[in-house]
Amino acid sequence: MNKKVVLAFSGGLDTSFCAIYLAQDMGLEVHSVVVNTGGFSEEELKQIESRAYELGVVSHAAVDETQNYYNDSIKYLIFGNVLKNATYPLSVSAERVCQATAIATYAKKIGAQYVAHGSTGAGNDQVRFDMIFNILIPDVEIITPIRDLKLSRQSEIDYLHNHGVTYNAEKAKYSINKGIWGTSVGGKETLTSHETLPEEAWPTPATSTESKRITIEFENGEPVALNGERIGPVKVIQQLQAIAQPYGIGRDIHIGDTIIGIKGRVGFEAAAPVILIKAHHTLEKHVLTKWQLSWKDQLSSFYGNWMHEGQFHDPIMRDIEAFLLSSQETVSGKVFIELNPYRFNVIGIESTHDLMSSKFGSYGEMNNTWTGEDVKGFSKIFGNQVMIWHKVNQK
Amino acid sequence: MNKKVVLAFSGGLDTSFCAIYLAQDMGLEVHSVVVNTGGFSEEELKQIESRAYELGVVSHAAVDETQNYYNDSIKYLIFGNVLKNATYPLSVSAERVCQATAIATYAKKIGAQYVAHGSTGAGNDQVRFDMIFNILIPDVEIITPIRDLKLSRQSEIDYLHNHGVTYNAEKAKYSINKGIWGTSVGGKETLTSHETLPEEAWPTPATSTESKRITIEFENGEPVALNGERIGPVKVIQQLQAIAQPYGIGRDIHIGDTIIGIKGRVGFEAAAPVILIKAHHTLEKHVLTKWQLSWKDQLSSFYGNWMHEGQFHDPIMRDIEAFLLSSQETVSGKVFIELNPYRFNVIGIESTHDLMSSKFGSYGEMNNTWTGEDVKGFSKIFGNQVMIWHKVNQK
Amino acid sequence: MNKKVVLAFSGGLDTSFCAIYLAQDMGLEVHSVVVNTGGFSEEELKQIESRAYELGVVSHAAVDETQNYYNDSIKYLIFGNVLKNATYPLSVSAERVCQATAIATYAKKIGAQYVAHGSTGAGNDQVRFDMIFNILIPDVEIITPIRDLKLSRQSEIDYLHNHGVTYNAEKAKYSINKGIWGTSVGGKETLTSHETLPEEAWPTPATSTESKRITIEFENGEPVALNGERIGPVKVIQQLQAIAQPYGIGRDIHIGDTIIGIKGRVGFEAAAPVILIKAHHTLEKHVLTKWQLSWKDQLSSFYGNWMHEGQFHDPIMRDIEAFLLSSQETVSGKVFIELNPYRFNVIGIESTHDLMSSKFGSYGEMNNTWTGEDVKGFSKIFGNQVMIWHKVNQK
Amino acid sequence: MNKKVVLAFSGGLDTSFCAIYLAQDMGLEVHSVVVNTGGFSEEELKQIESRAYELGVVSHAAVDETQNYYNDSIKYLIFGNVLKNATYPLSVSAERVCQATAIATYAKKIGAQYVAHGSTGAGNDQVRFDMIFNILIPDVEIITPIRDLKLSRQSEIDYLHNHGVTYNAEKAKYSINKGIWGTSVGGKETLTSHETLPEEAWPTPATSTESKRITIEFENGEPVALNGERIGPVKVIQQLQAIAQPYGIGRDIHIGDTIIGIKGRVGFEAAAPVILIKAHHTLEKHVLTKWQLSWKDQLSSFYGNWMHEGQFHDPIMRDIEAFLLSSQETVSGKVFIELNPYRFNVIGIESTHDLMSSKFGSYGEMNNTWTGEDVKGFSKIFGNQVMIWHKVNQK
Repeated sequence: MNKKVVLAFSGGLDTSFCAIYLAQDMGLEVHSVVVNTGGFSEEELKQIESRAYELGVVSHAAVDETQNYYNDSIKYLIFGNVLKNATYPLSVSAERVCQATAIATYAKKIGAQYVAHGSTGAGNDQVRFDMIFNILIPDVEIITPIRDLKLSRQSEIDYLHNHGVTYNAEKAKYSINKGIWGTSVGGKETLTSHETLPEEAWPTPATSTESKRITIEFENGEPVALNGERIGPVKVIQQLQAIAQPYGIGRDIHIGDTIIGIKGRVGFEAAAPVILIKAHHTLEKHVLTKWQLSWKDQLSSFYGNWMHEGQFHDPIMRDIEAFLLSSQETVSGKVFIELNPYRFNVIGIESTHDLMSSKFGSYGEMNNTWTGEDVKGFSKIFGNQVMIWHKVNQK
Repeated sequence: MNKKVVLAFSGGLDTSFCAIYLAQDMGLEVHSVVVNTGGFSEEELKQIESRAYELGVVSHAAVDETQNYYNDSIKYLIFGNVLKNATYPLSVSAERVCQATAIATYAKKIGAQYVAHGSTGAGNDQVRFDMIFNILIPDVEIITPIRDLKLSRQSEIDYLHNHGVTYNAEKAKYSINKGIWGTSVGGKETLTSHETLPEEAWPTPATSTESKRITIEFENGEPVALNGERIGPVKVIQQLQAIAQPYGIGRDIHIGDTIIGIKGRVGFEAAAPVILIKAHHTLEKHVLTKWQLSWKDQLSSFYGNWMHEGQFHDPIMRDIEAFLLSSQETVSGKVFIELNPYRFNVIGIESTHDLMSSKFGSYGEMNNTWTGEDVKGFSKIFGNQVMIWHKVNQK
Repeated sequence: MNKKVVLAFSGGLDTSFCAIYLAQDMGLEVHSVVVNTGGFSEEELKQIESRAYELGVVSHAAVDETQNYYNDSIKYLIFGNVLKNATYPLSVSAERVCQATAIATYAKKIGAQYVAHGSTGAGNDQVRFDMIFNILIPDVEIITPIRDLKLSRQSEIDYLHNHGVTYNAEKAKYSINKGIWGTSVGGKETLTSHETLPEEAWPTPATSTESKRITIEFENGEPVALNGERIGPVKVIQQLQAIAQPYGIGRDIHIGDTIIGIKGRVGFEAAAPVILIKAHHTLEKHVLTKWQLSWKDQLSSFYGNWMHEGQFHDPIMRDIEAFLLSSQETVSGKVFIELNPYRFNVIGIESTHDLMSSKFGSYGEMNNTWTGEDVKGFSKIFGNQVMIWHKVNQK
Repeated sequence: MNKKVVLAFSGGLDTSFCAIYLAQDMGLEVHSVVVNTGGFSEEELKQIESRAYELGVVSHAAVDETQNYYNDSIKYLIFGNVLKNATYPLSVSAERVCQATAIATYAKKIGAQYVAHGSTGAGNDQVRFDMIFNILIPDVEIITPIRDLKLSRQSEIDYLHNHGVTYNAEKAKYSINKGIWGTSVGGKETLTSHETLPEEAWPTPATSTESKRITIEFENGEPVALNGERIGPVKVIQQLQAIAQPYGIGRDIHIGDTIIGIKGRVGFEAAAPVILIKAHHTLEKHVLTKWQLSWKDQLSSFYGNWMHEGQFHDPIMRDIEAFLLSSQETVSGKVFIELNPYRFNVIGIESTHDLMSSKFGSYGEMNNTWTGEDVKGFSKIFGNQVMIWHKVNQK
């Protein structure tokens, strides 16, 4: 009996090549699997399945991880207001971790001896897949034909052709990766430092022009309702994306550090993530204390970077999640937002946990909980050490 | 001979009251001083001076601190990409520190026994003024008539009237504080949590509608040229503000922690600061290493918060400035930006220090500096500890 | 009917003065309470009670908070290996927070209108008491006779004498504060910067001379057994202290920042805390990942400082506790220790969670999980960005 | 003409093997170099040189980097009070970085095409050497015969024997690495988790028994004088080590994270480093502000870890050094220390920058710079936000 290999399969050129190569050149029993993290429609999943069987795989599975993806990652990215380098919601990074983990679980389940992915030797994904497989299924051997053979695009097409599989040779001008937490866009402009993406590169045309007000309701940090409808976080993200992306909101270009040390530039459209994060952060600024806000920033920044580098399974991530979960105890309330072409504004919030309550004195107005004398004393003591420092050092 | 008091003077109701009160009720020799940090025009400064002499001060001085303000604070706020809670460029916070420091220096120079400011007992400014005076001129006594007497607006107007000074009793609908690093706007909406400012509240009408490309050039982190003209940082800020604010760019509402523990909400328009910070940060993402970016974030966040709390004279601030200065060694190059109504985009950058250089392999493309084997080895070792952790703990 | 005051009572001069003063001069119904956090013996508690009734209090209560103190604070100080400025186990700081909290609860329970403490205006304790009362019982008024009246020691003695109470006028040469988490020692040497405490100042004479091996067992970070006896954390601390303090272990002098900005110096003996922390930390170094260790340090350092400043009731403390608790999942095992006069050594540890397992390759020895080639690749990629930086910047 | 290889040479078995192998099997012109970082005596250097020529090298050089090592690394380790995981002064880690950097410089100078080191595939050093060579001399190829050939100790001895070189086959029971910043000790006990090193394993016998007082003087953070003699930092370290190590001070076992992810345990004796760090830290606690101390801890901890991982040439290290240097402005004064067998105590300090000055009010004593009222006000405002939080959330 042939040994089993689980192939992370998307139906694209690279993984189509792998499907044939693993079976015919390596003599393995190929089990393809596609992990849906919210980026594939039913139809796309069917096409991928047909494609897989067309390529002769022994079995094909579509694993829906959308809800797990939200529970295990996106939820904490919202809690932490994670935007890498103040810009990028980690759309692809978090998704790959989820996919690699699901594939490892699948390989273990069906007792595979090998696991294969179609990554090249030039990006982040190879590290994420390799590392997560090494961690979760250390006894399963990893095969990466595209990276190892260093084939050109044309050689792959020829190889497929020689094995009776036709592949549309025309390459899309922009490579797109769509997921529930944002869509990345790469193209010739993102290979340089000085150009931006042209209008036609963005997957979702900016067609909405009318100003629109929406309300997002959070419960313990999770976005549970949109415009008064309690549909749960996954649907809030999906419906918000459907409403807001046609405004051209959340388009930007991120230039960041890849895991392998080079700088990488990528465009993305992510209306729902950027709106949810700003809405959530605004609510937090009303309900959390100063040091909660400060430490959340530090921990979340590391959390996002470490997730980006594929280190999701380090137990430090569980510890930070425990911190973040605790911090959300009072993060409940409504956030009001206005959408306009290419931009949005947070109008305000409403929460029973709002610390900006007129009961305790208003900013800029007199109050009755403390006196000017109290503040005088505070100012004196608050500056005491620095006053002493200046006296001692005669500055 | 009467004792001297230096009065921080703006010509508004509160400090006008103080000018009379300090002289007539307290029998002091009043020396008024206004510190210009780039927010006052020549004409406004003249009006303030006339007003001061009208109120009978013994001397009046206008101290121009704009360049010092840039050198001592704004420069580092740019180096650090400081936006408090990812939003507010600290427009007022940094300015008050600069003003209080200049007033302390002035009081020392003229040998004053007292120093007075017109703060109420409800905001941040009282702490900044009190504390900086305590630190820099601990032997000079602080007088704060408005805070101590808890007078109503009307009582102040009546008092002035009784002393032969007329004051226009009509209060502006929105209180505005203008400085080179942004203009704050407070009004009835900012006293609540759920409303935003109406269009008419913004000091600069959004009249520009035509898309415009601009170029900012940085040298060691400082913005030295605009659109090819090498005019120096202060002028870059001022001219950029003049060009970009009419697009309505950089308007937002900040909800933050006051020094005295309550939450405060304030609108601001700050086109130049937000554009400069995003431009500078984008350039940094191309030229700094991963850990430079990471540590800069942490230190700058503290730097901004501590500045906000008036603790500018803590020597830790000098230490962080030394760090920030060192980090800017390679932050030189051009940033290309597109302005559009209510938004702007960073198009890209150009720098001889750009680490995203095709010479070293491109993101997503094959390269010749390292091999797929190298990355395999890296992935194995990079995940080694977590692999061991999972094995040992049988997860 | 007179209004009720709850008096934090220790039986010393200051609080004895308060007991009389509150009743006789202020006309209040005095309810004294002593909070035992493990520092008082049964006999001492009885003496304090007699003293209270002698001074005429209406009621006296002794609240035993030892177990709560462990559960709410000490446990997390162990999890976090908290030594302030790498030296001081926060012996007094954490205790005061616990006491103030218990007194606030007691005042609420008996419906007091006032709460009184005997702090002077010169130390940390006044802030801890004031602040925690303000936070937990904002409607109860705080009275601090010693701070307000600024009485000299002799005036207090005279006052007591005039009210028929005799007080032994001889002041102890060293002021001692004993608790379960360490004993502080202040004296004339600690008021200077250059002297250390003499042998006779230390409460526990260093009489043990024979080398002794002990074993501490931790379970999820908590010290549950000593020398094989499963007696629970509180008893482990107490018995370890009884065994180790006579060796003179854990004596040191801490110079630190008070909450009010001045520097304060204090001697302490804390054998059990310093041994437990080093033992716990060593175990952690075997079972936690690199980043768990690193983040624990940062969060714990803040946690200790914020506790020291009396800010225990800030919800950020709960969030950090959630993090710390999560981090202790695998911190179980035995730690072997050798005690010798004035010092101790951690011999080693034993744990099923030990990551230093020979199964995965030994440090300095060849192994079979990865190859030299893997490390070559790792080294290349791990240094990739800095290599590029040096090339680009021609360093 | 043969191509040149620079060989990092210590005269031990591994590098002796390399010397022959590189010349005879690889046909290279071998230039051996030993980098002295303060661990070798003149005599040892001569022996190494003789050995090199005996093995037939074309040239041999001894590069003295002791002063550079101090200037570039040790100085900052002192500024930062760096003890990895609160224990280990990074004795070997920092030294390797210095050595690798010096070898790279030497290879560049003599125009070598190759550089070789004798590391095995099991430790930290291979990464440090590989990476620093990749960074500083990316065009020079790295050769690592021991790692690549995976030879046993006996095979190496046989190989040498076959090439006419005799090697004393008896392996030392403990492997020792001596440097100016401490000596590491490995042996069978350190390969386990539960045993400590026996007395005979420590290179310096603990023979001193008499209590001795010493004085170290720091100037801007650098230890410039010992017992009143101004001999400069390098000599202070060396003489302090000579005085204190015979007390058995500074012996400990460190269990830490290697760069390659496994845990490694190592004994060390480092009297001078641990005394200097505690002395320096104590002085800092008297002269620095609270936030200087706090941020120094965070940055230094990262600095030490990143140095340990060989990442010295990342520009973030220069930025942190700039911070540390700035922080030392007032770190000048004397520290008094008492040495006793196996332990030392800091007696106290003397500094014109001491912030614990009785002029500003003493801890625990009344003062005249601020009043009890001031502290009352401070306590109220300092707890304001948390008070509001508790009210709003009805806790």
